[in-house]
Amino acid sequence: MSTLGTSPTALLSPGAVRSAVLPVVRQRVCALEPTLARICSYHLGFTDEHGDPSGAASGKLTRAGLMTAVAQGAGLAPEDVRTQAAALELLHNSTLIHDDIIDADDLRRGRPAAWKVFGAGLAILAGDALQALAVQMVVDDPGPGRAEISSAFTEALRLVLAGQSRELTVRLGPDAGIAQYERIVEEKTSALLQCALVTPALRAGKPEHVLTALRGAGRHLGLAFQISNDVEDIWGDPAVTGKPVRGDIGRRNPSFPVLAAFPVSERLRELWHADDAADAHLAEMAGLVEECGGRDEAERRSRGHLESALEHLGRAGLSPAATAELTALFDRIVNRTA
Amino acid sequence: MSTLGTSPTALLSPGAVRSAVLPVVRQRVCALEPTLARICSYHLGFTDEHGDPSGAASGKLTRAGLMTAVAQGAGLAPEDVRTQAAALELLHNSTLIHDDIIDADDLRRGRPAAWKVFGAGLAILAGDALQALAVQMVVDDPGPGRAEISSAFTEALRLVLAGQSRELTVRLGPDAGIAQYERIVEEKTSALLQCALVTPALRAGKPEHVLTALRGAGRHLGLAFQISNDVEDIWGDPAVTGKPVRGDIGRRNPSFPVLAAFPVSERLRELWHADDAADAHLAEMAGLVEECGGRDEAERRSRGHLESALEHLGRAGLSPAATAELTALFDRIVNRTA
Repeated sequence: MSTLGTSPTALLSPGAVRSAVLPVVRQRVCALEPTLARICSYHLGFTDEHGDPSGAASGKLTRAGLMTAVAQGAGLAPEDVRTQAAALELLHNSTLIHDDIIDADDLRRGRPAAWKVFGAGLAILAGDALQALAVQMVVDDPGPGRAEISSAFTEALRLVLAGQSRELTVRLGPDAGIAQYERIVEEKTSALLQCALVTPALRAGKPEHVLTALRGAGRHLGLAFQISNDVEDIWGDPAVTGKPVRGDIGRRNPSFPVLAAFPVSERLRELWHADDAADAHLAEMAGLVEECGGRDEAERRSRGHLESALEHLGRAGLSPAATAELTALFDRIVNRTA
Repeated sequence: MSTLGTSPTALLSPGAVRSAVLPVVRQRVCALEPTLARICSYHLGFTDEHGDPSGAASGKLTRAGLMTAVAQGAGLAPEDVRTQAAALELLHNSTLIHDDIIDADDLRRGRPAAWKVFGAGLAILAGDALQALAVQMVVDDPGPGRAEISSAFTEALRLVLAGQSRELTVRLGPDAGIAQYERIVEEKTSALLQCALVTPALRAGKPEHVLTALRGAGRHLGLAFQISNDVEDIWGDPAVTGKPVRGDIGRRNPSFPVLAAFPVSERLRELWHADDAADAHLAEMAGLVEECGGRDEAERRSRGHLESALEHLGRAGLSPAATAELTALFDRIVNRTA
């Protein structure tokens, strides 16, 4: 914390963020009870299912990258939020471990999901342990803004869980309109991005209008990302997404393109309500969604939210270098070019 | 917080603790996302599976009772730790919701477990939400000792999860001896009791030797309670415990009486390793454990830990009235006479 308040010289590259944050993540995970450490290390790609070192992906560390860039743009050094950046990645991963159990998803980042390897019982505990560890790291870190940052983390977690529950309970049909969709995304996706953006500002003691601007940026970034993700789920390359194609349609999870196309096509509504997950059935629905303009509307709306996110970011008064870096990061997050 | 530091007049009765803490629990649970609120309200006995009011049991609020008594013994008013007492009950209940899924237990307090009613997916989220809510309440409460109390809660949660994981991974056989058994109990059972006892002392700014005494009391209280609980699991009345009899033996979860009897009886070891959960098989094992002195040894050891807990309590320098009340509470917790 010795460099707190001094000006950074150059922004960390995404690779450098990785090198700074991953060792903290790894060290904290390894200190868990051995079985929990093994499951979490597997989930994070550090090890294979036998506990041997693995070169698997650990995810993109999107949230750590955002947090580090904002920190530097707010006059902090990357070390000033390193614990928080690692903690936010752990919090995010805790929700992924439980998500895969809840959705019965077999794959995560192209490998068998943790619950498929270790069983649902232990995977529940591993997700709990990561959630607890993330909050503990933030609660125990004694730097400036400790209480406010702890509150930001627990509020973000509350929102993610509320959004996940809301999503499960509206899953049965697309009667939930765009407004409810956006509410769910703001909870389950935007909340952690907002936490990433706001945490450095809390540490740096920035005034309320900066926090408001960063929260707005995170809200729209989450919406832009999720809608783009929905498009990828239907028309993306499984080799890039690491997930089976059209999973949302198969599970009848109303995604943005489907919701946008729904009012237009009676045939789509019929197919949606038929209990059929055959590839041809899913492909026909995907075709109808595209014909009815659901894809175009989703792409248009995702771009619009990205623009709004950048507008809000501009109001946060971060350094020009950080604003430029964050602009590039936002674009990579939404368009998955990273 | 206005009465902080003033002397209490009379100790709250268990009924009064209930009346003080349950409304806080209920209010915070009702403010969750509606589906999560419904599941948690059901689990806590506030409502039935349809969401209608229910007179079902909410548990004994053991931890809230301990916390309130220590608070009064340390010169605080019950209101000074009311949020923390409610939060600790929520934290405890979050672990129960997940525990029932992990152990595939169908019953909780004589009613179908939450996951049997709402499905495992939503019950996972409900447990997550209670865990997050409990920590959020403590993190957001601005009274004295906020940071230390937040750390105590997250550390207790870390230990509970470590203990649960350790228990699952040694479940396969009773090769784990008494030492490992005690370690698991200190984690999964003692940790929350220690948190209950220590929190008021942190709020009141008590010196380290008081915290050490209270931690010691919680450690032995947890061991006394768990060993007594193990005895009940085998020889107790299911109408009192609310759980099927000999569940631990059926699941081959090595409990204290079994571990104590194990070295003595080869026949017991044979039966244990046979994959048979028929009533007659379990009854024969229970009989052997008793014949080999496992029950006597467990009862003796539970009494010994209770005495140690009271010795440590005596060193905490709480008011005589609170010490007397806590002595009675410890006894009720271990001997389930409440």
